[in-house]
Amino acid sequence: MQRRNFVKAAVLGSSAGLLLSSCAPGDIGAPSVQTGDPSLRWRLVSSFSRGLDTIFGAAEVLAERVSHLTGGRFRILVYPAGELVPAFEVLESVQKGTAQMGHTASYYYIGKNPALAFDTTVPFGLTARQFNGWVYHGGGMDLLRSLFADYNVINFPGGNTGVQMGGWFNREVNAVSDLRGLSMRIPGMGGRVMDRLGVAVQQIPGGEIYPALERGAIDAAEWVGPYDDEKLGFAQVARYYYYPGWWEPGANLSFYVSRAAWNQLPSHYQHAVAVAAAEANLDMLSRYDAVNPASFRRLVEGGTEVRAFPRDVMDAAFASAEALLQEGTADPEYAKIFDAYTQWRQDATAWFGTSEQTFADYMHGH
Amino acid sequence: MQRRNFVKAAVLGSSAGLLLSSCAPGDIGAPSVQTGDPSLRWRLVSSFSRGLDTIFGAAEVLAERVSHLTGGRFRILVYPAGELVPAFEVLESVQKGTAQMGHTASYYYIGKNPALAFDTTVPFGLTARQFNGWVYHGGGMDLLRSLFADYNVINFPGGNTGVQMGGWFNREVNAVSDLRGLSMRIPGMGGRVMDRLGVAVQQIPGGEIYPALERGAIDAAEWVGPYDDEKLGFAQVARYYYYPGWWEPGANLSFYVSRAAWNQLPSHYQHAVAVAAAEANLDMLSRYDAVNPASFRRLVEGGTEVRAFPRDVMDAAFASAEALLQEGTADPEYAKIFDAYTQWRQDATAWFGTSEQTFADYMHGH
Repeated sequence: MQRRNFVKAAVLGSSAGLLLSSCAPGDIGAPSVQTGDPSLRWRLVSSFSRGLDTIFGAAEVLAERVSHLTGGRFRILVYPAGELVPAFEVLESVQKGTAQMGHTASYYYIGKNPALAFDTTVPFGLTARQFNGWVYHGGGMDLLRSLFADYNVINFPGGNTGVQMGGWFNREVNAVSDLRGLSMRIPGMGGRVMDRLGVAVQQIPGGEIYPALERGAIDAAEWVGPYDDEKLGFAQVARYYYYPGWWEPGANLSFYVSRAAWNQLPSHYQHAVAVAAAEANLDMLSRYDAVNPASFRRLVEGGTEVRAFPRDVMDAAFASAEALLQEGTADPEYAKIFDAYTQWRQDATAWFGTSEQTFADYMHGH
Repeated sequence: MQRRNFVKAAVLGSSAGLLLSSCAPGDIGAPSVQTGDPSLRWRLVSSFSRGLDTIFGAAEVLAERVSHLTGGRFRILVYPAGELVPAFEVLESVQKGTAQMGHTASYYYIGKNPALAFDTTVPFGLTARQFNGWVYHGGGMDLLRSLFADYNVINFPGGNTGVQMGGWFNREVNAVSDLRGLSMRIPGMGGRVMDRLGVAVQQIPGGEIYPALERGAIDAAEWVGPYDDEKLGFAQVARYYYYPGWWEPGANLSFYVSRAAWNQLPSHYQHAVAVAAAEANLDMLSRYDAVNPASFRRLVEGGTEVRAFPRDVMDAAFASAEALLQEGTADPEYAKIFDAYTQWRQDATAWFGTSEQTFADYMHGH
């Protein structure tokens, strides 16, 4: 605990500007003051392939900006999943120092610590804006940075998908009972909830979803949303496109920085990484919000039948998800984050339910 | 047109990273290559007072980050409204070079060009996420930069309020007929729409709203949302708090940079300004999303009666706003932006109406 508290004090700092003043001069116990601008070349390992261009691209946006900010002296080389390390070993790789940075989804590592899910998304959790409010200005960053201190990692929000779609189905879902025996590709906590609702949950890599749907090996599959789903051609092998993706209401991707590597950066390089991460966070969501609408329109024009999950499915999933999330609270660290996250969700939901949503609903229903 | 096209080609560049590659090396015809890092001190004039801390603060967030990114060599001094220039002369001031930068709302200048409203917000316009999608990755930046080229200004999005509240009322609004003769403080295009609906529109500075409501000189007033409104104490002098603020569904604040000053910056200083503007944009919305929920809860707990505008008020306002926005289309430049904005809104509204809103509505109604 001593170590963690030290790290917390060192990296968290005060609250100016997206809580990224973590890297204000003097906040970090850098071993020596560097003069001049060193030429650096870092490795950033991504959990994503180039094909998932909106998500993978966030790391490139960061790397490009950091290079420009430092006159080309600080170069970050971005490696897609599998080139240097496997997709799901990004945390371990940054922890060990194999790579100085990573770009990944923290919920891939809930086997190490279930609380890491709160850094990405949980079923019926915060939306993108609610998450950014919590993490940048609502105390969320302190809680998450404490978690990552155990891995010698400093985390930065690094992109968001918005509420994902509920996925592609070849069977109608008109009631909870229709889920029983349905064979669906859905990983993570969404899969665990679906399992409790009677779904035969399948774990299939993204590239194998299409043939599995085509030959009827599965009845349904979730991926991301219109833009990514359109590229994989799911509309050709599935009839119904359900929403909302209640299991991923605002998936936040994260940049990880090795603490040892961070501590060796001159202050203005630390600022370059921090501010470029913030830009990449905004940029990914803006890209999704720019490309999803047209993809959605094309899918609808192409004959995809868009359906909302019925209320009883939402209710059953909500109850099951809440029970699942409660199970972690035996651990005090998890409980602390869970309580803060849940309280935040309650206040944010009440506020967003007024102006933001009634306006949006009016525009949609008009 | 020659000049404008040149500027457009010079400042727009390609599309990597929030369309801010405008400032990639070589894109800008800088008069000479600078070696070393010059010590610079710029003036940034804000249209806002320190009291409006979330909005005013965005300029401070930018200035602080730019300073850190440049080892303290590039300092931007932020002046609140009225210190160097009056609140509504920010555009003119940057155009003339009195200040190198400004932070303002472009709809203050629709007297110069009505199309400038699309850089901030229009009644029943884009939400914050929809605007960011449009401006960063949907072609919006090109259109807006062309507008600002007439003023020798390069614009960057610099913060968003989200959907504002509809304001404070001491009379109930149960139908359009209740608006007739109502005396309301509401500036800008919202005021013009309200005027058409029979409201006696009043123009009153923010600091004078409270006493005007208190002594009954006005029946209603709009300001921003829970956080800002709570500070001004409106709950003590008005009974009903209506939503949504359909006239400001996602007010974008903008940073202006004098083109002459911009062209003298070394490339990495240009990048520092551009990336810090992106961070400030995300940061302001995140601050609002962090502080509004608690303020909203306190207002409700304190007895404020929160009401939705009735459907017929929304419909009448929508029809009136659309007619108002159409009036500008005689001007080809306005028409071009109006068409792009309206098409964008249509696609975005259809998409956001599925996953994003049904999820949020479920959480709120649950």
